[in-house]
Amino acid sequence: MRKVGIVGVGHTKFGRANGSFLEMFSSAAVEALDEAGIKTGPGHGVDQVLVATMGAGMLNRQSGVASALVDTLNLRPAMAETVENGPASGASAVKLAFMAIASGMCDVALVVGGEMMRVVTGWEATDFVATMLHPEAEYRYGLTLPAFAGMFTRLYMDKYGVTAKDLAMVAVKNHEHAMHNPVAHIQLVPDLYAITEDEDAGVINPYVAEPLRLYDVCPVSDGAAALVLCALDVADRFAKKPVRIAGIGQATDTHVIAEREVPTDLLAVRRAAEKAYRMAGLKPEDIDVAELHDAFSILEIAISEEVGFFPKGEGHLAVRRGDTKVGGRIPINTSGGLKAKGHPVGATGISQIVELVRQLRGEAGGRQVASAKNGLAVNFGGFGNNVVATILSREEE
Amino acid sequence: MRKVGIVGVGHTKFGRANGSFLEMFSSAAVEALDEAGIKTGPGHGVDQVLVATMGAGMLNRQSGVASALVDTLNLRPAMAETVENGPASGASAVKLAFMAIASGMCDVALVVGGEMMRVVTGWEATDFVATMLHPEAEYRYGLTLPAFAGMFTRLYMDKYGVTAKDLAMVAVKNHEHAMHNPVAHIQLVPDLYAITEDEDAGVINPYVAEPLRLYDVCPVSDGAAALVLCALDVADRFAKKPVRIAGIGQATDTHVIAEREVPTDLLAVRRAAEKAYRMAGLKPEDIDVAELHDAFSILEIAISEEVGFFPKGEGHLAVRRGDTKVGGRIPINTSGGLKAKGHPVGATGISQIVELVRQLRGEAGGRQVASAKNGLAVNFGGFGNNVVATILSREEE
Repeated sequence: MRKVGIVGVGHTKFGRANGSFLEMFSSAAVEALDEAGIKTGPGHGVDQVLVATMGAGMLNRQSGVASALVDTLNLRPAMAETVENGPASGASAVKLAFMAIASGMCDVALVVGGEMMRVVTGWEATDFVATMLHPEAEYRYGLTLPAFAGMFTRLYMDKYGVTAKDLAMVAVKNHEHAMHNPVAHIQLVPDLYAITEDEDAGVINPYVAEPLRLYDVCPVSDGAAALVLCALDVADRFAKKPVRIAGIGQATDTHVIAEREVPTDLLAVRRAAEKAYRMAGLKPEDIDVAELHDAFSILEIAISEEVGFFPKGEGHLAVRRGDTKVGGRIPINTSGGLKAKGHPVGATGISQIVELVRQLRGEAGGRQVASAKNGLAVNFGGFGNNVVATILSREEE
Repeated sequence: MRKVGIVGVGHTKFGRANGSFLEMFSSAAVEALDEAGIKTGPGHGVDQVLVATMGAGMLNRQSGVASALVDTLNLRPAMAETVENGPASGASAVKLAFMAIASGMCDVALVVGGEMMRVVTGWEATDFVATMLHPEAEYRYGLTLPAFAGMFTRLYMDKYGVTAKDLAMVAVKNHEHAMHNPVAHIQLVPDLYAITEDEDAGVINPYVAEPLRLYDVCPVSDGAAALVLCALDVADRFAKKPVRIAGIGQATDTHVIAEREVPTDLLAVRRAAEKAYRMAGLKPEDIDVAELHDAFSILEIAISEEVGFFPKGEGHLAVRRGDTKVGGRIPINTSGGLKAKGHPVGATGISQIVELVRQLRGEAGGRQVASAKNGLAVNFGGFGNNVVATILSREEE
C-alpha cells in the first residue's frame, strides 16, 4: 500500500468563531495549505477535499459545504465530499483521505473539519448532539450524551473505585496543558480543592449529570482544523517534512448502548486501537504521546485502558501518579483535550491529529513531549459506537 | 490499482416510504446483501459501510446513520461513515468505497443511499434542496434549484433552439421507461399533446419556474438504494458475477453559478466524464446505456451533450429523433430517470448504478437495452458544482 503523510496543519482558535461558517473552514484550510507551500488556483495539485462536519445541516442549514469550500479556496476542479460520523467525523475524513491516496486515485488531499455550534445553547446543543443516539431506542426517550456518560461513570466508580477527585484531576491536568496551547478554547486552571472538596464546590462545579460535574464535561465550541495529506512518494513537492500516518483502525459497537454485554467496556476503542497498532507494527508501549477523546473526564480514563496504556480499571491510578501529564510516562491530551481545548464536533478528530503532528515535529512549545516519535489519537463517535484510532510516526532522517 | 466490481444491488420502491428512516435503508441493504449471498452476523466479511444522505440531519434529525445501520444489519465491527455531496451524495459514496477497496484497506463494502424527503412538502422541500446553493451569494437571497433550472433552460432555448415540446419529449420518454421499472415512483405516461399544445396544457402542466413546467421537474420521493462492492480478486466469494467499475471521474465547478464564464456550459460534467472515460479506456461511442441526472428535463439534454453523446446544442435533436429511447442509438434513463423513477436525493447516484448493473446483467426486463456492455452514470451535485461520472463494464466470460 502506498505510504501517506501529513505536510501541513491548520487550526482556528477554538471558542466563538468570528465570521461565517465557510470563513471558519477556509481559515483553517489556508493555514494548512500555506504550511505545505501549496498555492491555490491553476496547478494547485490538490486532488481531493474532504470536509468533516456533523451539524452543517442541522445547525447552520448548509449542505454541499465541501463544494463551497473548494470554490472559496480556488481549488477547482478538485473532488470534494462531506463526511459525517458524529464526533468521530474528523478522523473518519482523515481515514477516507488516506484511502484515496493509498488507492493511487489521488496524490494530495485537503481535510478540513469544523463546527459552528454556538449558534445554539443549553438544551438545544445537548439535543443536537443527542441526534447521534439510536433514533428509536434512545433519542426519542430523551436520552442524552451527558446522561449516558453519567451512568457510565457511576458504573466505573462502583466497579473500579474511581473517585470524583480522580475525574477532577483529569480536568485540571488538561486545563494545565491548554495553558500552553494558544488555540485552546479555555485558558484557566481550576483549583482541585475548590472544585471537589471546598464547601462551595457544588456551586462553582455543579452537577451536570450526576456524578459528572461541570468540570467533567467539555464545553460547546466553534472551531475548525485542517490537514494536508500526500503520498510520501510526492512529499518532496512540499515545504514541510511529512509526518507519516502509520496506522488507522476503526470499529463499530452496538448502537443501542443498553445492548452491550459489559457496559463498562468500550469494545470499539479496543478493536480500533488493536487494528491501528497492527497496521503500524507498534505496541502501546511504543506510543509517546496521545490525544484521547475526553468529551467527559471518565472517557480519558477508560480509553487510556482500552488502548493498552494501563490495565483495565487502573487508568485512574495512572492519573493519580501523574503518568498522563506532560513529563509523565505517557502524556495524554497535551493539547488540552476536548475538555479545555474545546470540542467543535467535526473538528475534533482533525484537531487531535494536528496536535500529534506538532508534537512529532517538536513544535509544541511549552507542552512539548521530549523526543516524541509515535503518537496515537482516538476519536470517539456516538457513545463509543464508532471509533477511529490513528497512529502517526515521525519519519526518520 | 486493485480492480473493483459490484456483486449485489438493492432498491426500495421509490415514492412514499413505509416504516422508519432506518428501516428504509435496511430494506435496500438487505436486498443487496442477499443478492451477493452475504450472511450478516459473525464472519460477514463486510469491511466498510458508507451511507449517502443529504437530509438525515435537516429532515429526519438523525446523525450517525451509518453506525446505526451497521448495528441494525448486524455488520459490526465494520467501519462506517455517512457521505454528503448534495444530490451527488450517492455516487460520491460509491467513489469513496471504490477507493477504500482499491487501496487494499478493505475487500468488501456496502454502500447505501437514501432520503426520506416527504416529511416536508412544497416550499419546505424546495428550501431543503436550496441549502446546497452558496450560503452567502445565493441561498440567502431566496434562490432555489428550480429557479436556476428555469434560467438555464431559457438561455438554452435562446441559444440552441430547444423548444418546450423538446423538454416534454424527454419527460414522456422517461415516463414510458418507468412503466417497465417496478420501483419507479410514478407510473403513468403523460400525453405529449395534452401537456404541451392542448388548451388545458397550462392547467395539467402548470409552470413551476417558467419556462419549466410540472412535467419538466422531478418529484419529491422517499427511497433508498444499495450496492455491494468488492475487490475482483475476492469476487468468487459471492453469489453474483461482478459488474466492473471501470472508471470514475469527478470535478467541481464554481459554487456561485453567476461566476461561470459560459452559463450554458456544464464544465464539471464535461471534466468528470473525460476523467471517467480516460480511466476506463473508453470513448463516448463505447457507451451502450446511460443514466443522466434529469432533475430537470433540460439537464438530460445538456448532460447528454457534455458527456460527448451529441455535439453541444444538439441534444434536443437526438430526443426528436428518438435516439435516447430504449431501442434508440444511446438509450438514456431507462430506469425512468429522476423524472419518473423519483429523486430521493441521497439514493439517486446509487439508484443510477443499480439500473446500469441490471442492464449489464441483462436483468432489465421490458426496458432492457440489447447486449449492453458499458454503462455511464452522471450524478449531478448542486447546480453542476460537483459532478461524479461512473462507468460500469460487463466482465467478459
